[in-house]
Amino acid sequence: MRRFAADRARRAVAASIRAAARSAVPSAPAAPAPPSPAAAAAMASAMVRAMSTAAAGAAPVSLDNINPKVLKCEYAVRGEIVTHAQNLQQELQKNPESLPFDEILYCNIGNPQSLGQQPVTFFREVLSLCDHPALLDKSETHALYSSDAIERAWQILDKIPGRATGAYSHSQGIKGLRDEIAAGIAARDGFHASGDNIFLTDGASPAVHMMMQLLIRSEKDGILCPIPQYPLYSASIALHGGSLVPYFLDEETGWGLEVDELKKQLEESQSKGITVRALVVINPGNPTGQVLAEENQKKIVEFCKNEELVLLADEVYQENIYVEDKQFHSFKKIARSMGYTDDDLPLVSFQSVSKGYYGECGKRGGYMEVTGFSADVREQIYKVASVNLCSNVSGQILASLIMNPPKVNIVCAQSIINWNNDGNNLHVYFFHRLGMNPTNPSW
Amino acid sequence: MRRFAADRARRAVAASIRAAARSAVPSAPAAPAPPSPAAAAAMASAMVRAMSTAAAGAAPVSLDNINPKVLKCEYAVRGEIVTHAQNLQQELQKNPESLPFDEILYCNIGNPQSLGQQPVTFFREVLSLCDHPALLDKSETHALYSSDAIERAWQILDKIPGRATGAYSHSQGIKGLRDEIAAGIAARDGFHASGDNIFLTDGASPAVHMMMQLLIRSEKDGILCPIPQYPLYSASIALHGGSLVPYFLDEETGWGLEVDELKKQLEESQSKGITVRALVVINPGNPTGQVLAEENQKKIVEFCKNEELVLLADEVYQENIYVEDKQFHSFKKIARSMGYTDDDLPLVSFQSVSKGYYGECGKRGGYMEVTGFSADVREQIYKVASVNLCSNVSGQILASLIMNPPKVNIVCAQSIINWNNDGNNLHVYFFHRLGMNPTNPSW
Repeated sequence: MRRFAADRARRAVAASIRAAARSAVPSAPAAPAPPSPAAAAAMASAMVRAMSTAAAGAAPVSLDNINPKVLKCEYAVRGEIVTHAQNLQQELQKNPESLPFDEILYCNIGNPQSLGQQPVTFFREVLSLCDHPALLDKSETHALYSSDAIERAWQILDKIPGRATGAYSHSQGIKGLRDEIAAGIAARDGFHASGDNIFLTDGASPAVHMMMQLLIRSEKDGILCPIPQYPLYSASIALHGGSLVPYFLDEETGWGLEVDELKKQLEESQSKGITVRALVVINPGNPTGQVLAEENQKKIVEFCKNEELVLLADEVYQENIYVEDKQFHSFKKIARSMGYTDDDLPLVSFQSVSKGYYGECGKRGGYMEVTGFSADVREQIYKVASVNLCSNVSGQILASLIMNPPKVNIVCAQSIINWNNDGNNLHVYFFHRLGMNPTNPSW
Repeated sequence: MRRFAADRARRAVAASIRAAARSAVPSAPAAPAPPSPAAAAAMASAMVRAMSTAAAGAAPVSLDNINPKVLKCEYAVRGEIVTHAQNLQQELQKNPESLPFDEILYCNIGNPQSLGQQPVTFFREVLSLCDHPALLDKSETHALYSSDAIERAWQILDKIPGRATGAYSHSQGIKGLRDEIAAGIAARDGFHASGDNIFLTDGASPAVHMMMQLLIRSEKDGILCPIPQYPLYSASIALHGGSLVPYFLDEETGWGLEVDELKKQLEESQSKGITVRALVVINPGNPTGQVLAEENQKKIVEFCKNEELVLLADEVYQENIYVEDKQFHSFKKIARSMGYTDDDLPLVSFQSVSKGYYGECGKRGGYMEVTGFSADVREQIYKVASVNLCSNVSGQILASLIMNPPKVNIVCAQSIINWNNDGNNLHVYFFHRLGMNPTNPSW
């Protein structure tokens, strides 16, 4: 199935590249905007001044004198297929008949709501109420919002000092929301989690950057990354001046991650003088979709422990499992089940509100759970977080909601109807996840 | 007045430092959390495993092997006063009677809503509606939201592809919102502005980081920064491995910024082999509050032009002017009024939803207006923006609202009442800004 899809994609891309080669024309530069009346008034002095200062030398900023790490990042984040799609889109805009299709759907990044997925009503009701808490004092609100969303909004606002959703929060995020997320992690894994270990961030990307910034000292520091990978990793490693040490997933075994391959790449990079600092594992895989088996995860944990690597676990697709016999296990759960405690293994788990059944990409919510670091290193991570003050509070609230969605046994009928009315069958997924039968609600 | 306040603050801090020295006790380490039942089950194997792997060597991550730039940043973002305040707060929690006050108000960072300022109703109504667009189809919504907020929410949603506030946007931000911001800038300055030059960001801080990341190649690259400064600059320069080149504001002349001082510091740093890349000007000043005079700004623009520096204009306090005879002029307005065009001077203006009368710090909205860079360098800035996908959409919406707040001549009576009801006299400020008399509304 996967192989078939990959072949089909390859054929489609090859066909459109051929079509574009036949019809592409160079795009004309945009016409400059006409000057505003006020600007026109300054034109005369501009001309005089231009004569006195023009051609004083090279531009202050050029590709020759910007940070070379920014330049190096170039090839990592822009894929050939996306660039080609953008060219085709420009072509379509200029000449809608020129190609055998009239629309391009961008699936290079998971962005479900741009493709028509509707948001979950409950989440949006809560956000809407928290954005305008004055609504909670009005009786008319009950006609517009479900009672469980109103109740949850109250609970959330009570966790925020002064109920001020417009104030900077603690730099790790609002403590009460972090505690709620930790409780969700503990319920998922069966092992203790602490809100003190949660760092709420504007999506998972800034969290990944923070860890790269902490670990990478120079190009002699390497980060083991899967290939195929999500381009954030190559981009972030390039921007922070480190070396990406690739390990290759095995397509033949459903994009398997073999510890032998990790060892081989580690040793090869060490022989080149690279100090490998961390291993990135994306589970479930992105873009490969595989779900690691528990035994495989144990070997990976053991590998990190023995080689003294930080395990950076990208677990943002934990809700996106589409086969019956696979199950997501967080790396922290695996490590704890092996008996490793907070003292044994530096482990960071990344989660995001952008993926899963929620798909709330535009809200930029996410977190990392940071365990296994010494207090003084933790303090450094906190310091880096504090430089940016805090992540956006709506994203923080949403992160708490996805880790503590409404439970069927307490949810009121109105929310269930709303979930149904979202029109994208998310409720079916959700009830399956809870082990319920969505077509025969006996609860 | 300022001198008096500074003296008073110095005395208060000195007194509380003495008091703390008398009463401080070292804080006990927190007790470890008891193991969960599931964790207890793994304990036996933990002990066996611990014996086989413990003390295998130094911790994988320690202060000795993290990025030294992160370490170097340490002294830049943590002020002595804040650290002392946090110690006093811990002391107060342990022993409420120990100090001659019972509460600490943190004024080290502008965070008005944490100090009780209420948000502007109109802004929050629009955000609330955009978070849950389904409300706009319901008649009951008119009982809860002002009609102009409903109208504005429709206008905003019409600018968002698919009305999907939960989708990743363009990496610079939603084009229609950027155009609205550009129109606001043009109306403010009297000179053309383009939405293509706007980069919407999660507050102004990430925008500052992006520019530092672009410009700084090594510690041999310097950035001229005012002293006193906002610690974001020293922190960001340290994290990106550059050198802060200080220039000193003159307290005697109301924290004046003299071009002679800029020249002196520039030459001094050049003599040490530093290449100065940019000048940071914070206007109105932070934390100094001064508002630069137009003639002074012209000299600064001329200095940047002659010395081939990027002008990084922190203009986030543009609405915070508390004296009758001062007026904010953006550096772009000044440069354009001098006749300099987009070809003459690389200039970045930072703006934020966190400051001004709005004070919406927790929403993390902001933008930078980037002018005077070549197309290929602009492409690099866009690339760095695209690595983080996009800023949060609620913050983007709010940034468009602050640059296009309701106009009195079109605003309906309901909104005016709401502004009054916000209870913090913001409407007085706002009407003054519009040249209206708030106590005698004849409009």
